Amino acid sequence: MKKVFDVLLAHNEFKAEAFIKELEGKKPLFVCTIATTETAKIQGISAAGENPEFTDYTPPADAELLLLGKCKCIKGVPVTPDGIPTPALITMSALRLADVPVLVASGGLKVKPQIPFLELGGNPGRDIKTGNAVDNVEEVIQRAILAGKHLAKTADYLVIGESIPGGTTTALGVLSAMGIKAEGKVSSSMPENPHGLKNKTVQTGLAASGESFGSLAKNPVKAVACQGDPMMPAFAGLVIGAAAYVPVLMAGGTQMTSVLAVVNALNPDVLCNVGIGTTRWVVNDSSSDIRGIVAQIADVPVLAADIDFSQSRFSGLKAYEKGIVKEGVGAGGASIVAMAKLGDGVTKDILLKEIENNYVALMEKK
Amino acid sequence: MKKVFDVLLAHNEFKAEAFIKELEGKKPLFVCTIATTETAKIQGISAAGENPEFTDYTPPADAELLLLGKCKCIKGVPVTPDGIPTPALITMSALRLADVPVLVASGGLKVKPQIPFLELGGNPGRDIKTGNAVDNVEEVIQRAILAGKHLAKTADYLVIGESIPGGTTTALGVLSAMGIKAEGKVSSSMPENPHGLKNKTVQTGLAASGESFGSLAKNPVKAVACQGDPMMPAFAGLVIGAAAYVPVLMAGGTQMTSVLAVVNALNPDVLCNVGIGTTRWVVNDSSSDIRGIVAQIADVPVLAADIDFSQSRFSGLKAYEKGIVKEGVGAGGASIVAMAKLGDGVTKDILLKEIENNYVALMEKK
Repeated sequence: MKKVFDVLLAHNEFKAEAFIKELEGKKPLFVCTIATTETAKIQGISAAGENPEFTDYTPPADAELLLLGKCKCIKGVPVTPDGIPTPALITMSALRLADVPVLVASGGLKVKPQIPFLELGGNPGRDIKTGNAVDNVEEVIQRAILAGKHLAKTADYLVIGESIPGGTTTALGVLSAMGIKAEGKVSSSMPENPHGLKNKTVQTGLAASGESFGSLAKNPVKAVACQGDPMMPAFAGLVIGAAAYVPVLMAGGTQMTSVLAVVNALNPDVLCNVGIGTTRWVVNDSSSDIRGIVAQIADVPVLAADIDFSQSRFSGLKAYEKGIVKEGVGAGGASIVAMAKLGDGVTKDILLKEIENNYVALMEKK
Repeated sequence: MKKVFDVLLAHNEFKAEAFIKELEGKKPLFVCTIATTETAKIQGISAAGENPEFTDYTPPADAELLLLGKCKCIKGVPVTPDGIPTPALITMSALRLADVPVLVASGGLKVKPQIPFLELGGNPGRDIKTGNAVDNVEEVIQRAILAGKHLAKTADYLVIGESIPGGTTTALGVLSAMGIKAEGKVSSSMPENPHGLKNKTVQTGLAASGESFGSLAKNPVKAVACQGDPMMPAFAGLVIGAAAYVPVLMAGGTQMTSVLAVVNALNPDVLCNVGIGTTRWVVNDSSSDIRGIVAQIADVPVLAADIDFSQSRFSGLKAYEKGIVKEGVGAGGASIVAMAKLGDGVTKDILLKEIENNYVALMEKK
């Protein structure tokens, strides 16, 4: 794959190159959209927490880490059941290197972070197996559009990330309801992608909501309400509001395709200002297919930070090379933004060194 | 008084001139800090609502007006018992003329606005007569400092306003607890300033908290907790966080002196980057003395928008010339900022025309 800085042009190469060059040297604002869903508590669905019940704490803890450099609502930092640290460690390192301002936005949370955050009027999400997963979708979208419009005036461009355990399953739910073939294509925070469990969960959810594959292709609000999660309306609204004025980098893995589908159905005009930014681990993942989903929705570029932990001194970081975690909290997009802002001032090696320094400080503290 | 644009250099003239010139042509972010206190429900204390119980709705309605151009939590717009419209009408007009982005921050609210807002972890305030008015003061200050630091990176400077009915009484409370002579010097939204009632309320409150004039001079956190309101920790923290990096215009009347006292006690170093921006109605008010309070605290400049409604076609606006309302929701500061951003592109006449247009649209809608 062609690279600009240490950023891979992973899909729609010409657009991707134009997109990264447009960001070069500009001043971004990073928005981290956090939410929780009971879907994450289905045994075996998510590795974004030491155990399923713990997933309520992962998004607020990730947000605290970004703003404070440490967590307040938990000891240490969020880890997988194997003790691998949250990708927020990457995000925080990249944003600090490039001195990027951060705003946290809540789509709906069980546990509130102990930091300032933008309240958008959402509630925590229910298990999508109920067929009725998210409240106030339309209202949250409208509020987030308003926020996006104002935030667009405060930066040259926005980069928006997410933290919501269980998010690839709800992404599959929304994509399926909207008629986008994503079975076997969504990513996972686990090395063994539990596609079967995700498919079964979504099938149960679709049946419970009285919908079927593609039946909500033209009703993205209902698709999110039935089968999505509360991150989605917040994220989609921010994109719609901001991308009307400035470029927006959607920072995440295959979850971003569900937000892309929602934005595309509500306001396709803004997509000329939108790109997806993720990690090498996602675009090279053989158990998922972000390009294959994006291509069904819209012609947006996909960029991927060429971060590589194979030479790290720490086994907790090396694990990322085995397909654990892969992405989250906008880790790939934040890395891309740091590289775009400072050019050769932030290479993959410089970034790894910063991540390792923070790893030592945070994991030893624990 | 000397003017730059249609801005009066009302106090510390040389500093005021330097301050306004520093803002010229720069890009501001307007932050509106909203909160509620039961103190506003003391009969005869506040005109910021049709009746005392209504004061819970004034701050969220003001915030909605700024972001949406209309209110959602009430019909029409907030008015005084005589039907005079909220100063948010001025703020909204100025910010729209100059295309200034707006962020709303909650210090603690009974009624939440139906728009995006920054949550800072505060609660609604109790009546200061209880002697125990505000929760979580230290925590809210810390969160607001963090927000201020990040927001400082998104703009050339910050202008911070407030909406909290009853705020001049709580300001008197905090100023008195901190040993600053403000009896008879705080302003009022009513044409007849109820100084006697305010003094009595504060004396009762100080006694209830076991404190006396000046006993909390070195403990601003406790002064706010005992005798203040939840706007103050949010506002003070934002100032401390942002003014370390960029200029901050504190937009409001005599309430700003209580925030100034808190900032001065916690972190006086940032005050070299701070000015107060208010209206001609406040600096020319014979029933209050903003300069006399500021002079006791710190050597910051006071600027005043030279807005003049005496020639308005509408009696609801002409009433401002009789000393009703005077200031609020950062009306003076927002006007100053519009003038500083666009220079002669926004004169007092252009601003009045815009305010009248919005007055017609909003008051007729009602």
